[in-house]
Amino acid sequence: MANIFSKYDLVSMPVVDQENHLIGRITIDDVVDVLEEEGSEDMAYIAGAPDEEITEDSIFKLARARLPWLLVAFMGELLAAFILNQFDVTLQQKLMIASFIPIIMAMGGSTAQQASVIVIRGLATGDLSLRDTGPRLLKEFRISLLNSLFFAIVLFLIVYLWDSAYFATILAVSIFVVINNAAIIGALVPLTFKRLKIDPALAAAPFISTTNDILGILIYLTISTLLLSHGI
Amino acid sequence: MANIFSKYDLVSMPVVDQENHLIGRITIDDVVDVLEEEGSEDMAYIAGAPDEEITEDSIFKLARARLPWLLVAFMGELLAAFILNQFDVTLQQKLMIASFIPIIMAMGGSTAQQASVIVIRGLATGDLSLRDTGPRLLKEFRISLLNSLFFAIVLFLIVYLWDSAYFATILAVSIFVVINNAAIIGALVPLTFKRLKIDPALAAAPFISTTNDILGILIYLTISTLLLSHGI
Repeated sequence: MANIFSKYDLVSMPVVDQENHLIGRITIDDVVDVLEEEGSEDMAYIAGAPDEEITEDSIFKLARARLPWLLVAFMGELLAAFILNQFDVTLQQKLMIASFIPIIMAMGGSTAQQASVIVIRGLATGDLSLRDTGPRLLKEFRISLLNSLFFAIVLFLIVYLWDSAYFATILAVSIFVVINNAAIIGALVPLTFKRLKIDPALAAAPFISTTNDILGILIYLTISTLLLSHGI
Repeated sequence: MANIFSKYDLVSMPVVDQENHLIGRITIDDVVDVLEEEGSEDMAYIAGAPDEEITEDSIFKLARARLPWLLVAFMGELLAAFILNQFDVTLQQKLMIASFIPIIMAMGGSTAQQASVIVIRGLATGDLSLRDTGPRLLKEFRISLLNSLFFAIVLFLIVYLWDSAYFATILAVSIFVVINNAAIIGALVPLTFKRLKIDPALAAAPFISTTNDILGILIYLTISTLLLSHGI
């Protein structure tokens, strides 16, 4: 609706019922209010702090409002701890694997957030529609292919100098798979939310980042275990 | 400026020079355009994908636009890998410490993002000003005290049942310190950016999350090392 006001520089718009009888009008100052509201709402969803008023005084209310989103992260990462614990033989064999858990998590998380925010924003402005799902996923994948290749090469060189070629290979393959996987998840989740008629902005922070942390760790440790056992 | 339009339901506003001569006017449809632009700009900054057009076709341009923000994360987390590597004696002593790196990182990151987005939004709407810096930091700290206490207790109970009281103590203390530290960082960084006259929205994703990952890991591993060596 705001997009129509913006596109045609309208200052007011008639509202009609199904038989085209005039039942009221929307003025542009309502649009300004809605836009301000919506912009900060989307931002707040991305952070997992929806509907929070900066002027709210009760610390208890504020803490409780933020708690559910933190709980999503908490339970997801508890699952990640459980998964990591299953790989203790691999970690024992090569302790340095643990040092690179943060970089794998962060590169996946950042990539997914970039992809998701671009898609959420595109859906909000109307520049992107559900019909573009296939092409958009392909586009995000092609972007991430380039960036993942860049980071795979840089990480290979750094870890090769730091440790060994075989551990450098593990990390290069892992970061390549994790980044591309994250780009697909980041673009796919908001599009799926939109298709299910749930606000895509809701998908961003808690859901996508937790999913990506778990998948990133699984991918990294599985690749590590496979390559270590084949003695590369 | 948009806040004034919204507050007084204006449809146009005169622009005067220093001697109060009328030199033009701003109409509300300009405000709508600016608001749409600003809202998506802030969202894009938070994701580290500024100025990106959904309709841009060149994959190379898009990949290059997103690269700098990924590089910030990459270099920060490489530092995290280096730090973790320094603690290999601690990790060897108690391998399970590695399994809880993700939960420590994620809880710190989520808390910081909540605090930062609330502050960024408050500064953008004018509900929060630099004069409120002290009270705001105190408020964020009090909110995080409640939530960190909640997660410290829950994590203590889970790890106590899973492993041991001494490892549960390490994790409870760590998550408590990390969450509170993250809340302060999350609120302080955008306020500092604002003071330095840099767009606070720029602070959000890449800078705050990377800082928090590094500090979170340092805090967790330092507490682990201290408590392990004292044989708690």
